[in-house]
Amino acid sequence: MKKEFVVIGLGRFGGSICRELTRLGMDVLAIDKNEDLVTEYSNIVTHAVVADSVDESVLKSLGIRNFDHVIVAIGDDIQASILTTLILKELGVKRVTSKALNEYHEKVLRKIGADQIVHPERDMGKRLAHNLVSSNVLDYLELSDEHSLVEIAANSKIDGHSIIDLDVRARYGVNIVAIKREANVIVSPQATEVIRKGDILIVIGANADINRFEVKMLHD
Amino acid sequence: MKKEFVVIGLGRFGGSICRELTRLGMDVLAIDKNEDLVTEYSNIVTHAVVADSVDESVLKSLGIRNFDHVIVAIGDDIQASILTTLILKELGVKRVTSKALNEYHEKVLRKIGADQIVHPERDMGKRLAHNLVSSNVLDYLELSDEHSLVEIAANSKIDGHSIIDLDVRARYGVNIVAIKREANVIVSPQATEVIRKGDILIVIGANADINRFEVKMLHD
Ligand SMILES: Nc1ncnc2c1ncn2[C@@H]1O[C@H](COP(=O)(O)OP(=O)(O)OP(=O)(O)O)[C@@H](O)[C@H]1O
Ligand SMILES: Nc1ncnc2c1ncn2[C@@H]1O[C@H](COP(=O)(O)OP(=O)(O)OP(=O)(O)O)[C@@H](O)[C@H]1O
Ligand SMILES: [Ca+2]
Ligand SMILES: [Ca+2]
Ligand SMILES: [Ca+2]
Ligand SMILES: [Ca+2]
Repeated sequence: MKKEFVVIGLGRFGGSICRELTRLGMDVLAIDKNEDLVTEYSNIVTHAVVADSVDESVLKSLGIRNFDHVIVAIGDDIQASILTTLILKELGVKRVTSKALNEYHEKVLRKIGADQIVHPERDMGKRLAHNLVSSNVLDYLELSDEHSLVEIAANSKIDGHSIIDLDVRARYGVNIVAIKREANVIVSPQATEVIRKGDILIVIGANADINRFEVKMLHD
Repeated sequence: MKKEFVVIGLGRFGGSICRELTRLGMDVLAIDKNEDLVTEYSNIVTHAVVADSVDESVLKSLGIRNFDHVIVAIGDDIQASILTTLILKELGVKRVTSKALNEYHEKVLRKIGADQIVHPERDMGKRLAHNLVSSNVLDYLELSDEHSLVEIAANSKIDGHSIIDLDVRARYGVNIVAIKREANVIVSPQATEVIRKGDILIVIGANADINRFEVKMLHD
């Protein structure tokens, strides 16, 4: 059941995908037209080859359609990204994930059959913006337009108070689903659990409620 | 209490930060040496100016030290990124977040006083790799080396079963903290809640337990 992946484009994004897939025990074929990058990644992934992915015959000879999933992580060269995605789908690759630079690029990729389209810089920019606006909010998962799961750093203002003491659920309508404390994670903490400064609270709820909680509880 | 931000570098990452900060109601001064980009963003943010950020006198004349937080989103030009960060800290800017290209770059940024260093492409690459390995896992928050919060898509295998029926907590040691169903989010679902195909389960637990749950429950 081990899956086989191909990553085309070994920039920061594609390179990171290669490293993490390998760490997760997957087979990875890494492709770039830049020889230096291929040499660097040949020590990390299963196979690494120098190739220009807009050359159909090269992809064919690599047996590309036998892989489970191909990731097109080409960035600045929109034309190469589009052409590569097109060839991959024409060769019958089942799942192709392509990186888009902008909305226009995304639209074209969708039309030519890309199965998944990602915008790494845009998505991380959004995440970081949330983190910047509230310095107590460390990370978050958007659950819907109105609901989120956020990591909030507990400061001295709530240090020493128990969850029941703060009456979080009744007063703010949010739930603390876990507490990160140093290397440990307390899942579903009891109401009597005492919060300490430096704890990271994992809170779920409506965005407006989380904001209220964050402002009232933590700001001075 | 409205915070004022400066974003230097309007590539995909910096541009996304500008848009999201603005959407969150913040004041943003956007800076790039590329005039076309500045024109584009002048319609989005509070102020946008053409400037080369390695020119100390320009940053000074913009009153940069009066802003709450400056984000250096310069990518490929490592030297400009380092020099800009250095000048900002020397001018007394309290919080500077800088984008790093690699570990070496990060080390230098840290030494010269950057308060926060981000690796957008690397982090999104890691996230995507997890999503690729398990097609049911849509997104996740790493809580510690051993614990995560993951979004798992419910498929036909568990359609129609209640949470108590699946006995998730006792059998796998994981907790379903929420269910995304179409536009709604059911926070802290009751044990009698019936899961439907297409639901997205928000599950918290040890990675090994989550994996076991995911494989046993969802794979055919
Ligand atoms: N036709 C092609 N065939 C093979 N590799 C290619 C092709 N076109 C581009 N690449 C490779 O894709 C990689 C990523 O492209 P590029 O650096 O332009 O994207 P980027 O968006 O700046 O990347 P990142 O932000 O992830 O660092 C580069 O290493 C480049 O050599
Ligand atoms: N010294 C400088 N002063 C002002 N702007 C700068 C300076 N150096 C670079 N920039 C701007 O920073 C922006 C982002 O840089 P660049 O495109 O190299 O990074 P990138 O990592 O490829 O970006 P992204 O992946 O976010 O698209 C560019 O628009 C560039 O004009
Ligand atoms: Ca690049
Ligand atoms: Ca680039
Ligand atoms: Ca980039
Ligand atoms: Ca760029």
